[in-house]
Amino acid sequence: MLTRSDRAEIEEVIAIYGHVVDDNAWDRAHLVFTDDFVFDFSEFGRPNLNGVIELQSALRNRKVYSHHSTNIFIQEVDEDTARVRSKFIGFSNEGPPISGDYRDVFVRTPAGWRLSRRRSSVRDPRFD
Amino acid sequence: MLTRSDRAEIEEVIAIYGHVVDDNAWDRAHLVFTDDFVFDFSEFGRPNLNGVIELQSALRNRKVYSHHSTNIFIQEVDEDTARVRSKFIGFSNEGPPISGDYRDVFVRTPAGWRLSRRRSSVRDPRFD
Amino acid sequence: MLTRSDRAEIEEVIAIYGHVVDDNAWDRAHLVFTDDFVFDFSEFGRPNLNGVIELQSALRNRKVYSHHSTNIFIQEVDEDTARVRSKFIGFSNEGPPISGDYRDVFVRTPAGWRLSRRRSSVRDPRFD
Repeated sequence: MLTRSDRAEIEEVIAIYGHVVDDNAWDRAHLVFTDDFVFDFSEFGRPNLNGVIELQSALRNRKVYSHHSTNIFIQEVDEDTARVRSKFIGFSNEGPPISGDYRDVFVRTPAGWRLSRRRSSVRDPRFD
Repeated sequence: MLTRSDRAEIEEVIAIYGHVVDDNAWDRAHLVFTDDFVFDFSEFGRPNLNGVIELQSALRNRKVYSHHSTNIFIQEVDEDTARVRSKFIGFSNEGPPISGDYRDVFVRTPAGWRLSRRRSSVRDPRFD
Repeated sequence: MLTRSDRAEIEEVIAIYGHVVDDNAWDRAHLVFTDDFVFDFSEFGRPNLNGVIELQSALRNRKVYSHHSTNIFIQEVDEDTARVRSKFIGFSNEGPPISGDYRDVFVRTPAGWRLSRRRSSVRDPRFD
């Protein structure tokens, strides 16, 4: 069973994600992502991003310049895998802040828990 | 005395609240609320909501479509009761995001810590 | 090494900070700040604030009326000192919400972990 320590580590990785992405601190990406990380963009009808290099490249012209994570809810899949729901607030240079959801898969690696897969969706009240 | 584990559980319930309410995932309401849950709306001069069914019904036409919780501060009342202050950010389809406060009572149940009473207030800079 | 309990305490102090500052609950300032607390405003080209009294006075005419903390990342310096990065969302009565970063120093005191130094910076997409 996931311990409180496992859960705190996962929460910490989610926190660091925001700093790495918003600060372009890609030298710290190893603290967050697995080597085979996939950013699942199927929700947006765009191809997935595979690995940190593709993520970094895709974010170069991003409009959302700050990412805040809240409401982290961790569910154990097995001893080394967890599904994690969280919410995010994104600050965009093209309008007011947005609210969205992350659906993550975390895996236990020798270096600690790392983000293996992230799916992002934006809440749009017009389509609710 | 509340253990770190008690506190982490309470934080988790606050996180799940946002997902249940925003996703209309009422089949998960038992993870969040006690059976005798009261949403105290006295601050808004409206009658309280009693139980999840009344809450669900009241939220049907809500304008705030996403709720983010932050700044959770847990204070022990006794071994089985805690008062919890937190802040929330609400995304509304009628204007910019709002900032507010939750004042909660949590109780320890056989199933874990659950939200027994919530009072919500919105910060309005005009009245500060 | 910092324990999970140390980390949870530091997170709690960051949470309480928002309540103290936004509620003007200065009678609880001792739960947050060391006696020799410094708010480092060098980023804004303004003199530092020294101690809670100066902070309280400086905040009297503040425009940001609500502070939400997220993305807390704690790094141990030594057994009694930690550097902490976090993000904040500020609600201002002069425009839309802002996103910023706190760079903190926490120290272990006989009463628990307390905030010894905070540097704040606001993310402005125009200057990124």
